[in-house]
Amino acid sequence: MQAEIITIGDEILIGQVQDTNSGWISRHLNQIGVRVKQVSSVSDDREHILQALRLASERADIILMTGGLGPTKDDITKKTLAEFFGTGMRRDNEALENVKRIFARYNAPLIDTNIAQADVPENCIVLQNRNGTAPGMWFDHNGKVYVSMPGVPFEMQILMEDEVLPRIKDRFRLPAIIHKTILTAGIGESFLAAKIEAVEDGLPPHIKLAYLPKLGQVRLRLSGTGTNMETLAAEVNAYAGKIVSLVREYVVIEEDIALEKAVLTYMEDRGLNLSVAESCTGGFLSRQITQIPGSSNVFAGGVVSYSNGLKKKVLGVADDTLRTHGAVSEATAREMVEGALHHFETDYAIAITGIAGPAGGSEEKPVGTVWIAVASKTKTTTKLFHFGNRRAQNIERSATNSLVLLLNLLREENK
Amino acid sequence: MQAEIITIGDEILIGQVQDTNSGWISRHLNQIGVRVKQVSSVSDDREHILQALRLASERADIILMTGGLGPTKDDITKKTLAEFFGTGMRRDNEALENVKRIFARYNAPLIDTNIAQADVPENCIVLQNRNGTAPGMWFDHNGKVYVSMPGVPFEMQILMEDEVLPRIKDRFRLPAIIHKTILTAGIGESFLAAKIEAVEDGLPPHIKLAYLPKLGQVRLRLSGTGTNMETLAAEVNAYAGKIVSLVREYVVIEEDIALEKAVLTYMEDRGLNLSVAESCTGGFLSRQITQIPGSSNVFAGGVVSYSNGLKKKVLGVADDTLRTHGAVSEATAREMVEGALHHFETDYAIAITGIAGPAGGSEEKPVGTVWIAVASKTKTTTKLFHFGNRRAQNIERSATNSLVLLLNLLREENK
Repeated sequence: MQAEIITIGDEILIGQVQDTNSGWISRHLNQIGVRVKQVSSVSDDREHILQALRLASERADIILMTGGLGPTKDDITKKTLAEFFGTGMRRDNEALENVKRIFARYNAPLIDTNIAQADVPENCIVLQNRNGTAPGMWFDHNGKVYVSMPGVPFEMQILMEDEVLPRIKDRFRLPAIIHKTILTAGIGESFLAAKIEAVEDGLPPHIKLAYLPKLGQVRLRLSGTGTNMETLAAEVNAYAGKIVSLVREYVVIEEDIALEKAVLTYMEDRGLNLSVAESCTGGFLSRQITQIPGSSNVFAGGVVSYSNGLKKKVLGVADDTLRTHGAVSEATAREMVEGALHHFETDYAIAITGIAGPAGGSEEKPVGTVWIAVASKTKTTTKLFHFGNRRAQNIERSATNSLVLLLNLLREENK
Repeated sequence: MQAEIITIGDEILIGQVQDTNSGWISRHLNQIGVRVKQVSSVSDDREHILQALRLASERADIILMTGGLGPTKDDITKKTLAEFFGTGMRRDNEALENVKRIFARYNAPLIDTNIAQADVPENCIVLQNRNGTAPGMWFDHNGKVYVSMPGVPFEMQILMEDEVLPRIKDRFRLPAIIHKTILTAGIGESFLAAKIEAVEDGLPPHIKLAYLPKLGQVRLRLSGTGTNMETLAAEVNAYAGKIVSLVREYVVIEEDIALEKAVLTYMEDRGLNLSVAESCTGGFLSRQITQIPGSSNVFAGGVVSYSNGLKKKVLGVADDTLRTHGAVSEATAREMVEGALHHFETDYAIAITGIAGPAGGSEEKPVGTVWIAVASKTKTTTKLFHFGNRRAQNIERSATNSLVLLLNLLREENK
């Protein structure tokens, strides 16, 4: 089953807005066994939208559109859709009630252009949008499905999850499809591939293995397609088991969740808490952790000790250590992590000190040199890394590796 | 002058990789007066690439492609281009030397598939890629220009800046175009529009005003198109001056740079330094600041005082204050900011304490309640905000507003 995505709006074509919708939709369609053939971003222009619709319907059975549904005069998607289907417009009462409800909530006056948000092509099924004034629309026309959704990402996402994906599964005969994700860290894609080559080469044609790399992490995703969910699940799980047995030391978790989330869950389940002392990562690690709702159950906080002053004052790193070994050294990393553990009174702590670049490198300690330390009340582990010369990557790799080191220590000490 | 962008690669269509290239290219073309008509993401498939090329060349004069140039067998872009142009392949010596140089740097063995990276269609001008093994290619065919670039963002960006944009300016008769950006903060788009309505309505047709909103910030961009650069610049600057005079209190800087960068530059120029105490933003503000290379000249560091323990221990917030007023209160924000200023020994400090959500809200202090304090040695300012109920937005808005408050205090105290 093939789909196409059309994003409508000049704001994408002038580069003002980054289109994240098509990636999100592609990922979710892929997961239910629908392949995206093409993504097209077109302007708010009648002729151009019509052409895109015609071409997409020649290549695919499902055409999903986002954007072009705002109240301003530029947004002509709905009229163009009516023209494409050869139909007129009607006012949808439920959509109108929704518009009124939203305006009442903000005490805003309702003008004609807002009321027109409830006008839709006659042949559509309205997908009510509780989070915005532009309704979603579902068209079943000449054996193909067309869906128009607002461009605001969270409005689109909720409509996709609640309405569009279930309807697509209903409407089309999709294969049974099962995904199993194994999150690994601390090993590169090509080394990982070499280690699991035998399993990969032995996979039957209906089970595919994908490598999804991110800095310092690789997700392995097994996707099985078949007719019987139960046998398929057993089969996919068996292959996942074989892979895990070959690379066990690099496996973070056998689930499709973020590394930070995996660490937080592990700690929360055991009633443990965490603090961090960040130097070169400058808050990136704290930010990664606190991005996750509920992280405060585990994360006590930390310090961004960018200056030596803060390393001494807040973490108690000895002046002598800084003078003898430098801020980027095993000794400093050790004192930072033990300082965090002690002063912030947590069960575990992470410390990172390094040279992210572009400035600050030397012959002896080039840009990319990073010391990471993790500690519990009974053990401190340190590790030296040599990353590359790109600041953003060095920061991200440092944070990822610190979480991997922490997870290893956690597993060693808490079964 | 119209352009189209074609991104090639299955990894985009399964949603594994977010395409950021097309937005970047669109923005940069737009700035030199080239309009992007359509962006198409297509699969690594010969027929599909040929169709996309044919359709794009019917609509535009400049066709820019990214991706599909890797050494693996899936990447068939180059052969398909040769087919499209009806030409053969040749090996480019300079590109081959570049491949060898890169492999030598990593001490990696050179195999046949790597050597093939230097093969290009006969009719292209090679745009040497110093940062990767896949060369860029420039084709001038039947009055239209086609460019193929690697998909790795920083390789593409450097090729665009060094080779493609200058060549496009040379090859086509583009209008003189001037952009002037005014960064505002602390005022919404519609209120801003109302205040500068008179200027906007009086703009001549060759000068356009765009509103580029981000959470808590709006960039105003004047774009003038003409024939004489000098008169155009004078004209655009005059309109910019009129706009600034109407909304002066909201203007952060009359340049197209990030708010954090504007604050850091202002402080660095005056030899001032900064520390932060973050609660609900959880490191986001520190991260925004330290993302900027050289931020260590101004930023001493800070604390992510997620727990009350850290607020007391590191910042010296009184137990009594927390008990009487709560962690999210003016009194706590004040003690946090003064604690940071004092303990971290900086000239200025920022403190943020609030309820980002989704949990933690109450009737009296709902999710989105945020207290922000900024302080110098002589003055502390506090402000209460009520944002919405979305965690990510609350965090971003808090950070933005704290920087605006700081900038106001800086300007008050340092001329």
